[in-house]
Amino acid sequence: MIRLGFDLGGSHVAAGLIELPDQVRAVRSVKLPGQITFTELVARMGRMGRELLGERGCSSENPVEIGVAAPGEMDRATGVIRHAYNLDFHNVPLSRALEAEIPRATVFLINDADAAALAEWKAGVLKNYQTAWLLTLGTGVGGGFIEKGRLFFGGRGFGVEPGHMILDRQGPLCTCGNRGCIETLCSGTWLTQAAETAAIRYPHSRLAAEQKAGRPAGGKQVMECYEAGDAAAATIFERYTEQLGDALVSLIALTDPEAIALGGGISQAGDFLYEALNGYVQKYAFFETAPPILRSRFGNSGGILGAAWATLEEEAEK
Amino acid sequence: MIRLGFDLGGSHVAAGLIELPDQVRAVRSVKLPGQITFTELVARMGRMGRELLGERGCSSENPVEIGVAAPGEMDRATGVIRHAYNLDFHNVPLSRALEAEIPRATVFLINDADAAALAEWKAGVLKNYQTAWLLTLGTGVGGGFIEKGRLFFGGRGFGVEPGHMILDRQGPLCTCGNRGCIETLCSGTWLTQAAETAAIRYPHSRLAAEQKAGRPAGGKQVMECYEAGDAAAATIFERYTEQLGDALVSLIALTDPEAIALGGGISQAGDFLYEALNGYVQKYAFFETAPPILRSRFGNSGGILGAAWATLEEEAEK
Repeated sequence: MIRLGFDLGGSHVAAGLIELPDQVRAVRSVKLPGQITFTELVARMGRMGRELLGERGCSSENPVEIGVAAPGEMDRATGVIRHAYNLDFHNVPLSRALEAEIPRATVFLINDADAAALAEWKAGVLKNYQTAWLLTLGTGVGGGFIEKGRLFFGGRGFGVEPGHMILDRQGPLCTCGNRGCIETLCSGTWLTQAAETAAIRYPHSRLAAEQKAGRPAGGKQVMECYEAGDAAAATIFERYTEQLGDALVSLIALTDPEAIALGGGISQAGDFLYEALNGYVQKYAFFETAPPILRSRFGNSGGILGAAWATLEEEAEK
Repeated sequence: MIRLGFDLGGSHVAAGLIELPDQVRAVRSVKLPGQITFTELVARMGRMGRELLGERGCSSENPVEIGVAAPGEMDRATGVIRHAYNLDFHNVPLSRALEAEIPRATVFLINDADAAALAEWKAGVLKNYQTAWLLTLGTGVGGGFIEKGRLFFGGRGFGVEPGHMILDRQGPLCTCGNRGCIETLCSGTWLTQAAETAAIRYPHSRLAAEQKAGRPAGGKQVMECYEAGDAAAATIFERYTEQLGDALVSLIALTDPEAIALGGGISQAGDFLYEALNGYVQKYAFFETAPPILRSRFGNSGGILGAAWATLEEEAEK
């Protein structure tokens, strides 16, 4: 079976030809304009898909299964995206529309964080666990939960939203309207703001020099400057690992997972991040021993790979 | 089959003869001394059990299945309590010891909050749900999670501890060593302290008058004074429902349950508590609709009833 995986983000759409369990044979990524209509998006995705198939010499006679990892709320059974807030799409029939673009295609939808969790569980660092989390640390914070050997879609099918657990109820306002959600304290957005503030407060820091040289403030910069011994970055790094550490402590108390993997840009930092986090949860988690905190294997390609895995999972459910 | 359920608390032990699905035929409850050895406790439980069986005319020829709901960490397979901190018991073979006290008995252990959740799911307000929480609001806060039609014992078997999710990481110190755990903000202990403080601050309040008359400060008093229109109690009630509301919002974001039931003393308050909480989660929960927050059916007898149910569940697992 030929399989394509798409990962639809707020600013990019990526696609790849996938050979399960873990081979991404060809990838392309396209930046989306600030505003895009649903029709334009589907046309673009259709073109990407046809090009990938053509490149690999797949004839349009062959059936192809396509998984699409997308943000927001969706109805997997009907292939409709209910709400994708950062694309401003509501109730759009993505599966049906994409099937019309690519000959002999069957399209399955999956939440983007669920896709990344599925990829890590099927072929990555969560492979040997039955109950585990993947947390995606990006602009926001998402997650997927593998529970007793299945992907958990929530009790009512809305999914899991670890980014919107409340960690500091008197903390900063979240886009969801509440205060101190995990997302406000553990996302790349928090790191960016902290780095910008630190560059003003510590004008002689390496962090400030980097930003003065035109490099964007953010998680990558904080991690690099911390590794280089910058004191301003160290302050941010310590605060961040405490905040993320507390989020992990909450996840552990509530679900007692065998392992937690981290995905998204921040997760690609060096081993020092994992040493700090594992030390923190060993000290503060409720149970006698804490589960390991692991760097995800697939990083940013977890979405397209997991989307391709979703086609198999959905087949099995039918 | 004759079934007994025990509920072992920090200060009391209760026992009942149970007819499933929901009949508690005879109950007795004994206050425990401040310090009790394991041998003394087992002797006392044995006597309670033999008396209950004798009263109901059960001959010692009949086999009897006994469930014991206990606090803390346990190894259900071997019937050993690993740690019950408020009784200061560590690694005690409760099942084997109790089996030696009661002729032809087989004893099964279950966590007390899990037992209460099991009772509500098998025969109470969670009966029609497949994925739901029971939160017990007492001296501490515990919980049990029914997940896709089974009791969830955690990924590593340590169980679930919603009371130790962090809700306000700059909040009050918890007995577990962290700050602002749900337990510090949603327990009866929080209500007691708030009522004592309010009685000092508002000496002319009904709350203060009640306490001056020698009635103990606590959740029941706050709820009663609030219902009677006392402004000092209203301040506490509003703050409490916001704190508990945020805890519910976190549980909903992480697991998307179909329903959440409340148990423990506080849960027996009037409908006004449920109106306030349901209003709060409808407003602040992440998803389009929030699941219902329900008063548990069995209140304090959920432990012994659920313990009896655990004998059946464990049989099925073997």
